[in-house]
Amino acid sequence: MRLLMRYSVIYWILFQLVLLNLNAQEKVEKWDCFELAIQAKTRKNPYTEIHLKARFSNQLDTITVDGFYDGDNLYKIRFMPSGEGEWNYNTISNHEKLHDITGRFICISPAGNNKGPVRVHDTFHFSYADNSPFYPLGTTAYGWVQRDSLTRSHTLKSLEEAPFNKVRFMILPHAPSGKECELYPYVRAEEGWDFTRFNPAYFQRYDSCIKALGDLGIQADMILFHPYDRGTWGFDQMDKEEQYLYLKYVNARYGAFHNVWWSMANEFDLMTDRTMEDWDGYFQFFLKNDPYRHLRSNHNAGIWYDHREDWVTHASLQTESWWMAKELRLKYGKPVIFDEFCYEGDGINRTVALNGDVLTHRMWLITIVGAYGTHGEGLFQPRTQYQFFRQGGEFAGSSVHALHVLKQILNEVPGHLEPMGNDWRLNRILAGIAGQFYLYYLGEYQNALWHFTELPENIRFSAKVIDTRTGEIYSTHEGIKKGDSIDLPGKPYMAMVLRRVDLQ
Amino acid sequence: MRLLMRYSVIYWILFQLVLLNLNAQEKVEKWDCFELAIQAKTRKNPYTEIHLKARFSNQLDTITVDGFYDGDNLYKIRFMPSGEGEWNYNTISNHEKLHDITGRFICISPAGNNKGPVRVHDTFHFSYADNSPFYPLGTTAYGWVQRDSLTRSHTLKSLEEAPFNKVRFMILPHAPSGKECELYPYVRAEEGWDFTRFNPAYFQRYDSCIKALGDLGIQADMILFHPYDRGTWGFDQMDKEEQYLYLKYVNARYGAFHNVWWSMANEFDLMTDRTMEDWDGYFQFFLKNDPYRHLRSNHNAGIWYDHREDWVTHASLQTESWWMAKELRLKYGKPVIFDEFCYEGDGINRTVALNGDVLTHRMWLITIVGAYGTHGEGLFQPRTQYQFFRQGGEFAGSSVHALHVLKQILNEVPGHLEPMGNDWRLNRILAGIAGQFYLYYLGEYQNALWHFTELPENIRFSAKVIDTRTGEIYSTHEGIKKGDSIDLPGKPYMAMVLRRVDLQ
Repeated sequence: MRLLMRYSVIYWILFQLVLLNLNAQEKVEKWDCFELAIQAKTRKNPYTEIHLKARFSNQLDTITVDGFYDGDNLYKIRFMPSGEGEWNYNTISNHEKLHDITGRFICISPAGNNKGPVRVHDTFHFSYADNSPFYPLGTTAYGWVQRDSLTRSHTLKSLEEAPFNKVRFMILPHAPSGKECELYPYVRAEEGWDFTRFNPAYFQRYDSCIKALGDLGIQADMILFHPYDRGTWGFDQMDKEEQYLYLKYVNARYGAFHNVWWSMANEFDLMTDRTMEDWDGYFQFFLKNDPYRHLRSNHNAGIWYDHREDWVTHASLQTESWWMAKELRLKYGKPVIFDEFCYEGDGINRTVALNGDVLTHRMWLITIVGAYGTHGEGLFQPRTQYQFFRQGGEFAGSSVHALHVLKQILNEVPGHLEPMGNDWRLNRILAGIAGQFYLYYLGEYQNALWHFTELPENIRFSAKVIDTRTGEIYSTHEGIKKGDSIDLPGKPYMAMVLRRVDLQ
Repeated sequence: MRLLMRYSVIYWILFQLVLLNLNAQEKVEKWDCFELAIQAKTRKNPYTEIHLKARFSNQLDTITVDGFYDGDNLYKIRFMPSGEGEWNYNTISNHEKLHDITGRFICISPAGNNKGPVRVHDTFHFSYADNSPFYPLGTTAYGWVQRDSLTRSHTLKSLEEAPFNKVRFMILPHAPSGKECELYPYVRAEEGWDFTRFNPAYFQRYDSCIKALGDLGIQADMILFHPYDRGTWGFDQMDKEEQYLYLKYVNARYGAFHNVWWSMANEFDLMTDRTMEDWDGYFQFFLKNDPYRHLRSNHNAGIWYDHREDWVTHASLQTESWWMAKELRLKYGKPVIFDEFCYEGDGINRTVALNGDVLTHRMWLITIVGAYGTHGEGLFQPRTQYQFFRQGGEFAGSSVHALHVLKQILNEVPGHLEPMGNDWRLNRILAGIAGQFYLYYLGEYQNALWHFTELPENIRFSAKVIDTRTGEIYSTHEGIKKGDSIDLPGKPYMAMVLRRVDLQ
């Protein structure tokens, strides 16, 4: 009996110790982030000398993920469960206190904006893991996470009110040349930075920013490397081993967020110290180490990455040649996102000098030709002189408003739009889902009449004619069928939306 | 003495006979049309059974041309001399009265708008025979010659006031389906038409129309065949021999007008009864029989003619893909004219529903990428319900006005513009003549500042910033050099024109 009591006390103490050292949820939504936090001290470098993995198993799968050190003697393991029900885990480490920790949690149904990670769907499109369609309509805010707390909250508020569902931004610091950031990703060394020691505070901010975007239903298209540091801080000076240490840290830390996309770089080809094999290697790292298969691409300046490679999930392109969509889709056999086709602005260079109406027009055209586009805005915000594509903040342009009209129509599509009308009459004007839904973007044409010769027989549609710049409904029509005609306003930038009547 | 008198009387009678039968000029401007008219009666078919040629010689050349029958027992020979000084001629015919007529005329310097026929210049461009540059800026009026006298004079008046220097129009009848023409090109047969007997009155009208265009400095881009007759009159029903009889007549009759271009067809590929060899044959006919080497091309609908063929002088294209200019120029090694890239209008189909501002914008872009464009307008004219691209008359659109700005700037170019700036910054924005003249079309970009990093060292330019839609001069600058900056209005559709100072 005393032996039993003694054992009980020991077990109680052990249990308390576990409670002290462990912090984990009991219930986790599907595709949400399960987090296990473990305290452990070491005199070694916790980033390079302490190894920590965890194995998560349900009845179907066993998935191994890396843990990461988050400062203050705290190690974390994050995991995104993709199946409901019970999951068990155990840790593997070269640190005694981190090794062989076991536990379980229950994965429950998702809620809110959590529809799971976005996947490629039907070759050229995207869907959430729950199979609902995802129409990328992105914007750009390279360094928004590096800005002050007020600007970050303005950025999130702006995004909440904007039509965008994807944001491209940097993981490494990005700021106007010479400006200091509040935080840096590494600890300073005698000269430059110690690329073997991360600054947890820097990366913790990304945790909350990615989470906040996820809560808004916005994909975090995160850019791993960029060429704009050159001579500013030196974060482009990691050696190859350090680069992979960085990728490992980022993957372990953010991979369990469902809304993460991996973009190897912005304008990768301007990082002239890296070879094409280096870029291939980064992709291969994620292919091997990201168990969630987040979307992967690589954004170009003048030289395009070869998006035919197996490890690329979609083409992320900087080009104004939206008309190449058909050809590019066929070439790559993948979705095509025109992630930069010039930003709205009045800057010195065309890339930041596009007229807002033209940006809106191009986005509609990109939609019709079966691709996806990303907005960016380089107008200076009156109060802060920030530009949204660089610092976030508050939108100052016109396209952000006009794109609500496109967003609203995309939300009405019962599936994915495919370009239709290969003949001269409808090419680059019509996209749809045969027999179900048709979107005509008349754009630069100002037809005063439309004759519906292209509709299928014996199906009736409701139709609306809408001004793509204002959202104003010019007219609505019920029971439209093949051969019917409707009046149009004879003005440019109009769209027609036809929806099969029994789909209402 | 009596013998001498008798001979004198005989010679006098012979001389009078010559005067009766011959009507020819003594002085002809270089590149103008010399015409010899000879009376002769026949019971044969004067179009098929009477053969008439003439040989024209100066000290350098001997050129043989066909004559043609113009009705009322009158045969004509037309000749365009390309060298000043004395020319001698003699006729060859199977009709006694037409045979071996000889004469001479003096070719004098050209005057007025007569700069000679337009030739290909420097691979991708055009010049007049007098070497002054020709920048095609065309419009379209398919059936204007078939309209009534008032409409024809309205058309000429409209063209005189418009910025256009080339008109595309049909030689065979073209009119809205079911409408009668005042004149037809052939004599009626018991069934249909006698394709061996032309109606001279029909063709005489073209003489005066071509001449009137020439006097205005406008090229007559004449379309030999077209697919729109189908079931209306039957002029598309000639057999092959009749087709060549038609070509021979047209060539003999109009070839001596300096402003003629030969377009084998409008939308040739819609004439499905003709093979590609037929089209090749028409070209070869002109290659062999047109001594003046007038420009030759063939305009497409969906299938493009192979403009690489030796007998094609330039690519005449129907396409909206102006951005392919660079590629097409290289492919063909010839000038590229986008002869149809959608007409201004509000019609049912995009081809006649382009917004006027967009047409103007495309024309500027086409200029910058080193090609040429042709305007067309399909708006219904209030009084007549005519559309200019079909019937001529009076312009009703907006692009005709805005294109004056382009025309004016093209007139200032000291040579031919070549696309410049192969880099992303200037591609499709800058064209010019290195060191001499630069034309920036900012189009959809609304830069608020321009920094002239791209100019050559040590040359100073005068600059003007101009609104391409209104012609309004935003600012002028003297002594601009590499490295200078100027303010721009931050509005789209602006152009900058820089001219080397010592060229003023």
